Amino acid sequence: MAPWGERLAGVRGVLLDISGVLYDSGAGGGTAIAGSVEAVARLKGSRLKVRFCTNESQKSRAELVGQLRRLGFDISEGEVTAPAPAACQILKERGLRPYLLIHDGVRSEFGQIDTSNPNCVVIADAGESFSYQNMNNAFQVLMELENPVLISLGKGRYYKETSGLMLDVGPYMKALEYACGIKAEVVGKPSPEFFKSALQAIGVEAHQAQ
Amino acid sequence: MAPWGERLAGVRGVLLDISGVLYDSGAGGGTAIAGSVEAVARLKGSRLKVRFCTNESQKSRAELVGQLRRLGFDISEGEVTAPAPAACQILKERGLRPYLLIHDGVRSEFGQIDTSNPNCVVIADAGESFSYQNMNNAFQVLMELENPVLISLGKGRYYKETSGLMLDVGPYMKALEYACGIKAEVVGKPSPEFFKSALQAIGVEAHQAQ
Repeated sequence: MAPWGERLAGVRGVLLDISGVLYDSGAGGGTAIAGSVEAVARLKGSRLKVRFCTNESQKSRAELVGQLRRLGFDISEGEVTAPAPAACQILKERGLRPYLLIHDGVRSEFGQIDTSNPNCVVIADAGESFSYQNMNNAFQVLMELENPVLISLGKGRYYKETSGLMLDVGPYMKALEYACGIKAEVVGKPSPEFFKSALQAIGVEAHQAQ
Repeated sequence: MAPWGERLAGVRGVLLDISGVLYDSGAGGGTAIAGSVEAVARLKGSRLKVRFCTNESQKSRAELVGQLRRLGFDISEGEVTAPAPAACQILKERGLRPYLLIHDGVRSEFGQIDTSNPNCVVIADAGESFSYQNMNNAFQVLMELENPVLISLGKGRYYKETSGLMLDVGPYMKALEYACGIKAEVVGKPSPEFFKSALQAIGVEAHQAQ
């Protein structure tokens, strides 16, 4: 126990990733990664504060948490930091009305957002919704703007499903960047602001976190 | 006439682009750009050698030429340098068996190519065939190769159809480059080899061409 004890000296909180760390997504709700249900339970039983910090952008937090609970995890919606709510805050603050290139599963997170006459594009892990038609719609919205704003929920290259590797949002973000000659603003990991907001939610400073 | 005469001194051949120069593609075969039918006729009536050099990769040369002839152009299949035949030559020389991420309209150009058990990916302007499923298939083929080879027919950002701007192959090439951490080999403009092969076809040196 000594090495762990030393390593955790001064640590007050832990940020946990979800996809690929707690579970692998896939058909039928995916599968828990061996030992992860018990590890979460042990952390939550300890003196440490725990926050779940994910780039999951195919599902709403409600859906994600439901799925994890069915796999046996002790987790609630209020314990999750996810990019869609963070993006909504940015959209509101800056008066942006997005064209949403997103999966239907996460659309409910944007329920309070005005999407009429778009003046930006929000791109997330849209899966099958990454059709040529939808990509071209997003492209055309951006090309008609004087100052094109592209907000990307993460920039992951791919993720693992139980059926194999799947393209994540990053490649499609790069496609629109190249097509329009612009640079996307990334909301989610690895953006420092995103980690900060997760830590703020549990009242822990960066140097006190693992 | 003097400036043109001077400018053309020593010029023996002309390379002509097609899409966006001779015509704009679109529904019903597209439309000829004003003056272009006459310009081609005049060039072909002159002492200059003429070669058509296109990055068109949605259609076979036969289909493209048929469309242009219907618009009034004097053009035959043998006068066109296009990326699909150039790619086929590379595939044969290097013993490559491609997964084809292409438009059905250009598939006939690859009729003689072995596509079993793919050991590379060829990407072209696939239009609606740029589905998530097809992109993910190409991605998975590349990720399973020890030395992933991605051959892209051009790297254009977008092109103009009569109905508006359309995403070209370049953005999708960038998406796969980013997803796999690789660099594509571009066949077609602006590759110098591609221009050289067009000039060779009319027996003209680079310094003698416009």
